[in-house]
Amino acid sequence: MKNLLEDIEEILLMGPGPSCVPPEVYKALSRKTLGHLDPYFLDIMEELKEMLRRIMNTRNNLTFPISGTGSAGMEAAFVNLVEPGDSVLIIKNGVFGMRMEDVAGRLGAKVDVLEFTWGTPVDLEAVEKKIRQESYRIVAVVHAETSTGVRNPVTEIGTILKGSDSIYLVDTVTSLGGLEIRMDDWNIDVLYSGTQKCLSCPPGLAPLSFSEKAMAKLNGRKTKVPNWYLDLTLIANYWGQNRVYHHTAPVNMLYGLYQALRVIFEEGPEKVFQRHRENHLALIKGLEKLGLKMLVDEPYRLPMLNAVCVPDGVDELSVRRRLRSEFKIEIGGGLGPLAGKIWRIGLMGHTARIENVTRLLMALQEALQESKKVA
Amino acid sequence: MKNLLEDIEEILLMGPGPSCVPPEVYKALSRKTLGHLDPYFLDIMEELKEMLRRIMNTRNNLTFPISGTGSAGMEAAFVNLVEPGDSVLIIKNGVFGMRMEDVAGRLGAKVDVLEFTWGTPVDLEAVEKKIRQESYRIVAVVHAETSTGVRNPVTEIGTILKGSDSIYLVDTVTSLGGLEIRMDDWNIDVLYSGTQKCLSCPPGLAPLSFSEKAMAKLNGRKTKVPNWYLDLTLIANYWGQNRVYHHTAPVNMLYGLYQALRVIFEEGPEKVFQRHRENHLALIKGLEKLGLKMLVDEPYRLPMLNAVCVPDGVDELSVRRRLRSEFKIEIGGGLGPLAGKIWRIGLMGHTARIENVTRLLMALQEALQESKKVA
Repeated sequence: MKNLLEDIEEILLMGPGPSCVPPEVYKALSRKTLGHLDPYFLDIMEELKEMLRRIMNTRNNLTFPISGTGSAGMEAAFVNLVEPGDSVLIIKNGVFGMRMEDVAGRLGAKVDVLEFTWGTPVDLEAVEKKIRQESYRIVAVVHAETSTGVRNPVTEIGTILKGSDSIYLVDTVTSLGGLEIRMDDWNIDVLYSGTQKCLSCPPGLAPLSFSEKAMAKLNGRKTKVPNWYLDLTLIANYWGQNRVYHHTAPVNMLYGLYQALRVIFEEGPEKVFQRHRENHLALIKGLEKLGLKMLVDEPYRLPMLNAVCVPDGVDELSVRRRLRSEFKIEIGGGLGPLAGKIWRIGLMGHTARIENVTRLLMALQEALQESKKVA
Repeated sequence: MKNLLEDIEEILLMGPGPSCVPPEVYKALSRKTLGHLDPYFLDIMEELKEMLRRIMNTRNNLTFPISGTGSAGMEAAFVNLVEPGDSVLIIKNGVFGMRMEDVAGRLGAKVDVLEFTWGTPVDLEAVEKKIRQESYRIVAVVHAETSTGVRNPVTEIGTILKGSDSIYLVDTVTSLGGLEIRMDDWNIDVLYSGTQKCLSCPPGLAPLSFSEKAMAKLNGRKTKVPNWYLDLTLIANYWGQNRVYHHTAPVNMLYGLYQALRVIFEEGPEKVFQRHRENHLALIKGLEKLGLKMLVDEPYRLPMLNAVCVPDGVDELSVRRRLRSEFKIEIGGGLGPLAGKIWRIGLMGHTARIENVTRLLMALQEALQESKKVA
């Protein structure tokens, strides 16, 4: 039987994640495996936690990567905080807000949803009104809605929530590493992310942080966390000073994340964020030259996830297939109500470089011309 | 800041996992990341599922790796099957049986435990009596109890359960790849494992398989699975023919597992199992020459996990520390009631080679002599 791994082609990953991985990170993944309780590995864990605190701008003690993908971060955030009957407000304008609703509902939360049309921003007045009306145990929002390319006003919502008893939970799966995040300054209590977006490490880990306030809610639970694998009271004993075995940590993936964070700090986070902005603007300019329109209005656009409207008469799937097969570029399609209507172009982490923007624009131009000929 | 990854030493991993990783698997981990919906990656997934079926000896359609470590496999098995009030029998003689009890209890199961002293085998008559007394929805047992080195009689329990309505759930985290497992022939309905033991891939994935009977129980649930991340009805739509996005699969870890399974099939599973047996016997012989005694009686010993009694007057931790620092070998200590009383020596997968056995025995001899001098 042929070994399929030997013929893997290098694809330019410009979809909604995973993003391109820098060579140093690939190398890190293949470093010799150490035991999960090895003293040298514990040093690596300590530095990893410190780098995560820096990129999140938090002093939270409980800051570490969950042993699962970004969605496991969402599951961990909710399952540790929600007890049956807890009131949860989900601010929803895309797939990942919808997923929060599902996750919280399965845990027995009393879920209230404040919904906005997909692709449009959150109305802050409506949020404020809702929060003043009822005191929620948890208020949750997605920072970078990967399904639409909308940037949600997490700073402003944090300001509205300041001084309230609510736990403020923010999904930064697609934003962390590509946009500045100031967890403590923005009053965020719970934050999680994924490795395969702007951190440019392959998928498999979910960086997570809990504030003291979130820890107090967790420690005050009347019931055990209904998920042993993600129970933070147990995992904290491994990632904290006690080093008590819980589950075997995914050692080589953690090497990868360690290296990916180093790459960001070597360039400098400010420069990394600026590189995302600049390449986003270059992409928009090029797309507009091709006559393409963006789904999201200018002030609410994410730099790392660009939702482009598929022109009338163009078969979006055949364009994507041609980009993949002929030009070795991956871009994403739409999800849910936006399926068939948008393309999602990622400029995440290592992918956010001008040579990639140029390569995609040239390929897209050709694919669109071909698509018009066929039509 | 120094890059700690650059100074990782190669440690001979002879603890309870992770085990040594073959060079081909390290290389696989660093292959170029593909998108989780990329057509070429889907081909890799198909072959991976097929190889998992072969090593488990099952025809189950739902056979794939969970995106988490071995413990996530346990969580997935229980959370998909258990509904509040379901009766579950746990056969327990170690830490991992105890963990099953905790996991099932958190999900609202009515848990009944049949316990045997740690380090001793399961009494089949007691199991049969218990099963005849009450009709359990689920009967669960650990094949290779990693905390004690005891091999539990999963074939025989499967025979007792044949024709019953119970779902038979077996933990093969430490056995899969080192002992023959015949899932279908042994009437096992649910089986899960981990990658970092006898499969010799770094930790991070949990191969899992559900029989038709287990799927029927899952599909007949009255309540949603209270865990979105591990909901098999959703994940099956990604790993099955529909390819519906659920979460972003841990692509590079899956490359690693693909390669690790290839390594096993290239050598041939029968030869691999024999290599485990032979090295286990060589280890025992050497340990006995050193005057050391095994915890477990001969007929019930696992080849891949050898529990050795710490002699009176020897500080077990200082011996382990010396093995690690001077000889670059990791072995494990005891857990729970066996802490301080045993060492756990792993001969898992790539680790199970005679040169490793010899190297450990020589190192252990020196460390023991030193320890006696100190005492």
